[in-house]
Amino acid sequence: MDERVREHAAVLVEWSARVDPGDDVVVDVAEGAHELGVAVAERLGEIGANVVTTYGSGEISRAYLSARDGEFDLGGHELALFENADVYLRLGGGRNTAATADVESDTRQAYSNARREVREARLDTDWVSTVHPTRSLAQQAGMAYEEYQSFVYEAVLRDWEALAETMAELKAILDAGSEVRLVTDRPDRPRTDVRMSIDGRTAVNSAASVAYDSHNLPSGEVFTAPYGTTGEVFFDVPMTINGRRVRDVRLVFEEGEVVDFDAEQGGDVIESVLETDAGARRLGELGIGMNRGIDRVTDNILFDEKMGDTVHLALGRAYDANLPEGESGNDSAVHVDLIADVSEGSFIEVDGEVIQRNGVLRFEEGFAAER
Amino acid sequence: MDERVREHAAVLVEWSARVDPGDDVVVDVAEGAHELGVAVAERLGEIGANVVTTYGSGEISRAYLSARDGEFDLGGHELALFENADVYLRLGGGRNTAATADVESDTRQAYSNARREVREARLDTDWVSTVHPTRSLAQQAGMAYEEYQSFVYEAVLRDWEALAETMAELKAILDAGSEVRLVTDRPDRPRTDVRMSIDGRTAVNSAASVAYDSHNLPSGEVFTAPYGTTGEVFFDVPMTINGRRVRDVRLVFEEGEVVDFDAEQGGDVIESVLETDAGARRLGELGIGMNRGIDRVTDNILFDEKMGDTVHLALGRAYDANLPEGESGNDSAVHVDLIADVSEGSFIEVDGEVIQRNGVLRFEEGFAAER
Repeated sequence: MDERVREHAAVLVEWSARVDPGDDVVVDVAEGAHELGVAVAERLGEIGANVVTTYGSGEISRAYLSARDGEFDLGGHELALFENADVYLRLGGGRNTAATADVESDTRQAYSNARREVREARLDTDWVSTVHPTRSLAQQAGMAYEEYQSFVYEAVLRDWEALAETMAELKAILDAGSEVRLVTDRPDRPRTDVRMSIDGRTAVNSAASVAYDSHNLPSGEVFTAPYGTTGEVFFDVPMTINGRRVRDVRLVFEEGEVVDFDAEQGGDVIESVLETDAGARRLGELGIGMNRGIDRVTDNILFDEKMGDTVHLALGRAYDANLPEGESGNDSAVHVDLIADVSEGSFIEVDGEVIQRNGVLRFEEGFAAER
Repeated sequence: MDERVREHAAVLVEWSARVDPGDDVVVDVAEGAHELGVAVAERLGEIGANVVTTYGSGEISRAYLSARDGEFDLGGHELALFENADVYLRLGGGRNTAATADVESDTRQAYSNARREVREARLDTDWVSTVHPTRSLAQQAGMAYEEYQSFVYEAVLRDWEALAETMAELKAILDAGSEVRLVTDRPDRPRTDVRMSIDGRTAVNSAASVAYDSHNLPSGEVFTAPYGTTGEVFFDVPMTINGRRVRDVRLVFEEGEVVDFDAEQGGDVIESVLETDAGARRLGELGIGMNRGIDRVTDNILFDEKMGDTVHLALGRAYDANLPEGESGNDSAVHVDLIADVSEGSFIEVDGEVIQRNGVLRFEEGFAAER
């Protein structure tokens, strides 16, 4: 076995999920994630945790959902499993990212609605989602298999403790601040100049560990829930949204809402997102990518939104972790991230003070206070 | 997909497990059984059952068990899953039948002991165990892959209703009988002549369906729990027991116990089985193979013991289904089947009357009352 698979398992089990002896762990192994499953099982055995492995197969889901008539009355066995679990580790990595492409969206939605309780029980565990590099994901990224493996391990096998400390400084700035302004001024693309309020909101130091309320591996971003957004933003990182290609999206905000938009490609996708519900026209997230192990776009949001020198804004639902206890933020059925490169001609201000320029933070080496 | 995979799934779900709409089903998918998993999920979707798929991986089990220190304090999540399940379908078929070969037997035993409650909860469901034909199982059988696929489907895709009716006649004879005598007299091998009591015992019509208290697919045998065995038996079907090859075993019984034995190969394996405990020297099962779709030995007990024209006797534990309510039969930590070919020079008597000659039952075409 590639030693990096074992290192991945160690980071997942120890840094990310903080598994203790005696913990009841559910490990979901995707069709292509067998090898990571073996390494994770070994680590869980060493720790003395108890393991149930479930099988995360897109092809099995498709067969099941396509055969159902769309009405679900889910029983208790899956719920009982998660209600009695301490930790849930999702090892993604299928053999075909389009494995469920032809499942009717109504069926998908009905199943998702019927599984709300199961999902909530799962979110109540110390859950972490990661991916094993597969040929299918390499293909989606437009990369050779070995090249993609190196990419994934570069992103996953970080010095997380050091990154968590760096990101804590950014979190402190955002927590103390009231207004964020993002500007990108480059001759080759439309200008970004947008302001949003973050007063009263709490940033999450997403350091790929449940100890930081961070449930993705890799992670490496600091995010909060903005409101009252005004201005224009240009998103130059291409994405796949609902299975469709989207490129060069420009959003115009007034008083917190999108009032105009255009896109070089996939404008109709953006339109249908915006029309989902009232909350879909407002932002649910402002995230600042800090994982410098991720140095390219791979059409996988788990990686893309954490990329160093990027900022992402999400239309739709806000996360509870960013909100004051008991307060509900922007509500929506969707949460769609859009990403902007900030490596050139760009700065972020908090309350009028530049805290990042061209991707470099105020407290990092190479930061230039003046343009 | 090979249409036979879908037919296999249909037999499993409908004839064997009798799954109803709304049933909570756990499907355990072995490393090599993905395709059958897809077909089973489709069928369960059509019926409207609820599904959790677990992953049955020998390699993951090995990694986990090898890393544990051998002490287990199993938590409740796996138990909760099975206590809330109506049906358990085990889809066997790995990629290496020796995947867990180097796990310490102490660890294996400790894990098995710690899982007693889980196992019992699983046995309380309508459980069925089957296998998907894999290259690994073909190799174990010494067969080409496509040849092995045909073999498995010939065994699984029977007219189970018709076979159940035939076996019901044999069950009626055994239920009414007091003593069974098995004789095989051929010039090329040691003579078998053994008598055992079945008075008060109930035979199981093992027709591969939970409706018949039969939990294997394929099945196709009628079995009961004999006692007071006296005489000699020669087992000419080769087997693998505890990973070791065993061939041409001869057992000598007096008053229900093995008093002498020899074997052409693997005599030490038989000796260690007999020395397990007091019950290991007595019989727990007399089974008469009735699945004529199984026409060769494949070194897989799920198939071998159901082979038409064979009889098997098991050293060790008896099954509750054969015993009067509340009565406990032969008790032992082991249940080791040994198989004899009865296709030539052989007959079975019940209370002095020949009920089978050379594998043909009294009520079947071609039966010869006289030798």
